Amino acid sequence: MQCIIKLKEWSKVTQFLKAKNNEITKEMRYVAKNENIDVNKLKENIAKGYVVILANKNHKNLKPVGIGKDLIIKVNANIGASPDKSDLEKELEKLNVVLEAKADTIMDLTIVDDYEYIDEIRRKMIERCDVPFGTVPIYQAVVESKGPGNLTLENYLKVFEKHAKDGVDFTTVHAGVTRNSIPLVNKRLMAVVSRGGSFLLHWMKKHNKENFLYKHFDEILDIAREYDVTISLGDGLRPGCIADSTDEAQIYELQKLGELAEKCKERDVQVMIEGPGHIPLDQIKMNIKLEKHICKGSPFYVLGPLPIDTAAGYDHVAGAIGGAFAGMYGADFLCYLTSKEHIGLPNIEEVREGVVIAKIAAHSVDVARGNEKAIEQNHKMAKARKKRDWNKMAKHVIDLKRFKDLRRKECDGDPALEKADKCSMCGEYCAFKIYQKD
Amino acid sequence: MQCIIKLKEWSKVTQFLKAKNNEITKEMRYVAKNENIDVNKLKENIAKGYVVILANKNHKNLKPVGIGKDLIIKVNANIGASPDKSDLEKELEKLNVVLEAKADTIMDLTIVDDYEYIDEIRRKMIERCDVPFGTVPIYQAVVESKGPGNLTLENYLKVFEKHAKDGVDFTTVHAGVTRNSIPLVNKRLMAVVSRGGSFLLHWMKKHNKENFLYKHFDEILDIAREYDVTISLGDGLRPGCIADSTDEAQIYELQKLGELAEKCKERDVQVMIEGPGHIPLDQIKMNIKLEKHICKGSPFYVLGPLPIDTAAGYDHVAGAIGGAFAGMYGADFLCYLTSKEHIGLPNIEEVREGVVIAKIAAHSVDVARGNEKAIEQNHKMAKARKKRDWNKMAKHVIDLKRFKDLRRKECDGDPALEKADKCSMCGEYCAFKIYQKD
Repeated sequence: MQCIIKLKEWSKVTQFLKAKNNEITKEMRYVAKNENIDVNKLKENIAKGYVVILANKNHKNLKPVGIGKDLIIKVNANIGASPDKSDLEKELEKLNVVLEAKADTIMDLTIVDDYEYIDEIRRKMIERCDVPFGTVPIYQAVVESKGPGNLTLENYLKVFEKHAKDGVDFTTVHAGVTRNSIPLVNKRLMAVVSRGGSFLLHWMKKHNKENFLYKHFDEILDIAREYDVTISLGDGLRPGCIADSTDEAQIYELQKLGELAEKCKERDVQVMIEGPGHIPLDQIKMNIKLEKHICKGSPFYVLGPLPIDTAAGYDHVAGAIGGAFAGMYGADFLCYLTSKEHIGLPNIEEVREGVVIAKIAAHSVDVARGNEKAIEQNHKMAKARKKRDWNKMAKHVIDLKRFKDLRRKECDGDPALEKADKCSMCGEYCAFKIYQKD
Repeated sequence: MQCIIKLKEWSKVTQFLKAKNNEITKEMRYVAKNENIDVNKLKENIAKGYVVILANKNHKNLKPVGIGKDLIIKVNANIGASPDKSDLEKELEKLNVVLEAKADTIMDLTIVDDYEYIDEIRRKMIERCDVPFGTVPIYQAVVESKGPGNLTLENYLKVFEKHAKDGVDFTTVHAGVTRNSIPLVNKRLMAVVSRGGSFLLHWMKKHNKENFLYKHFDEILDIAREYDVTISLGDGLRPGCIADSTDEAQIYELQKLGELAEKCKERDVQVMIEGPGHIPLDQIKMNIKLEKHICKGSPFYVLGPLPIDTAAGYDHVAGAIGGAFAGMYGADFLCYLTSKEHIGLPNIEEVREGVVIAKIAAHSVDVARGNEKAIEQNHKMAKARKKRDWNKMAKHVIDLKRFKDLRRKECDGDPALEKADKCSMCGEYCAFKIYQKD
């Protein structure tokens, strides 16, 4: 079989190739146990490209995470410094906070003018991060090239390899932004809102050449397969407002992503697809089905989607609404949004809240999809609530910190109130009590 | 025609009867203009019972609001004092805040031991409230009767009439909680979580009699039709956790509500149906379709629904997710939830945030349903965002207060930053700028 021959060629192999070769890895066992599913079924889904396991061989102390078919929905949190707000300690604090809030994966989107600082932030983060860690190598490549116009394949591959060696588990690669899409982008209200997309459009227009990531995709795959870096095919042309949603530029790029996903699969590199963006609720189902069709069941990683443009200050909530719809129709992986999206870089509390709110969307979908563990957690919560047992409720609530904070304020530090069999909402006219009295 | 005969019998008539008699009222004109729809079409929908116009004849300075088919989704905010937190000034402040946050309707759920105080709060609120105002008369009836066990029809009707005379536009009536449902409630994990429902179950068990609201429903309708109070048929048996959702008790009650809605319609009293509660995402469509089928297209007023039980501290967000699904499948009216739901009585800021978040869910559905005004607002926002025109964005954002607060913090009071053509998220690496530079 072809994959056996490939195995001989390579020094190291991916979870994908092992699954194809019917081999069960310790990473597969870990994920299957965690998700309470059959490991053989998981292996089959990996072999078909329906599931990826994020696990770079160089990421020490990693708890691998599976994403895709029949698994619970995962939540990613983006952190990282920007040119205007760069503070390593603050970003490491954010890392701790999102881990505490139980983000399933973390992406470092740091882009600052000093590339050694980017290296430092990334390495320090990976060291402390026991969940899969992602990056967008083109950000650092732009910095190292001194501007997007000076990008070269060589620079890009150098950065990509550095990230891979450091243990980055998944990387966004905007290889689907191609020259033919330029006139399509010009038709839009918002043109381009992806940083990676804008870098590549700029480069293609300046040099009048095809996107080098698209042309030399195989060279990226060479590195990815060596370390088992999962390729997250970036949607550089994701719509930036609902007026542009599901438009020609977006669908043209999605078709390119489908083509590139096939290349990944042929070379046994794990792949997932990044998705929009800004999509009204009535177009979400169509978008998910389209991705699953065009990309042959590859896991779908959605940012939001935001169903409206007018929720600035509450984009975390609007994104949770869109994310819940996406999840119900088959999306596998939600990227959180914070309340600061479209306004500025979030602070630590905003980052924390962003993770919790995305997890609420994900958990709502897990329950609806019949995940037994998720349903059981809710039943336990209901039983504790019936008894007004605040300590037991605290064990099952999604965000313990907020729950405790609100309770504390509610009871105003009064231990008698904390132990009292009531809450201030109904007081003596509590439906439970009236019913139970009978 | 029968309705003409009725017209002669009554001193005053409802919007419903006028619509049936092909008469266009000033309230219908107001609503049609506000919603940018054809007034004849609106009148037909009212005549069929698909739309209600909330407008008690005694409510001075009211801007009437339509709820139902082909109209934008409305949001209700519950306020009111509880036995443990009773402060008239605070509740009036909440009223101002929810009006500012653009709640479409307000319900006063005050239940305190002093019934004169309940009268005072209600009257002061109605005086200041220019949107439709709702109450749950059984709360005050229980107080006036000194406990749910002592409720009498006479007491209830006296309170109901007082509310109607004061100008209450809609009232929750838990007439569908009937004796046969008692064994069904006992099968549940959470039994009953509606206060009104618990009062009536208690009364029925104590007296071994049928729910007097059910038996004497016609007498309630006599008052409702005189003042054109819209009956909001309460779901006293709404599930209190996802384990109980769409269960026998809930569906049994819904059938009773369908029967009672028919009675309202026969007597030309406007009616809407209140709905669950706690419903996982996969059961929401079914619940909406069931209500629309059983209650022959009556407007559906949903509380949440909450798709999970474990989001305590974030029930406003979980409710917005559930509300958006409900809206997409045909719910007409969303009752907000606050972050304090299941924890305590919300404070002013929590009430404000609750309204905004429910409005985000409603607006997302309006956009998806193709409402032109809603879509236009989003396009204007996108155009302003493209230009980084923060002043223009402020005109189109759903919550101006939060937007300004976050911007102010972001710019740290620095006027140069406020005018600067950037935000701290991407700084110089802004996708728009890179694209527009070309």
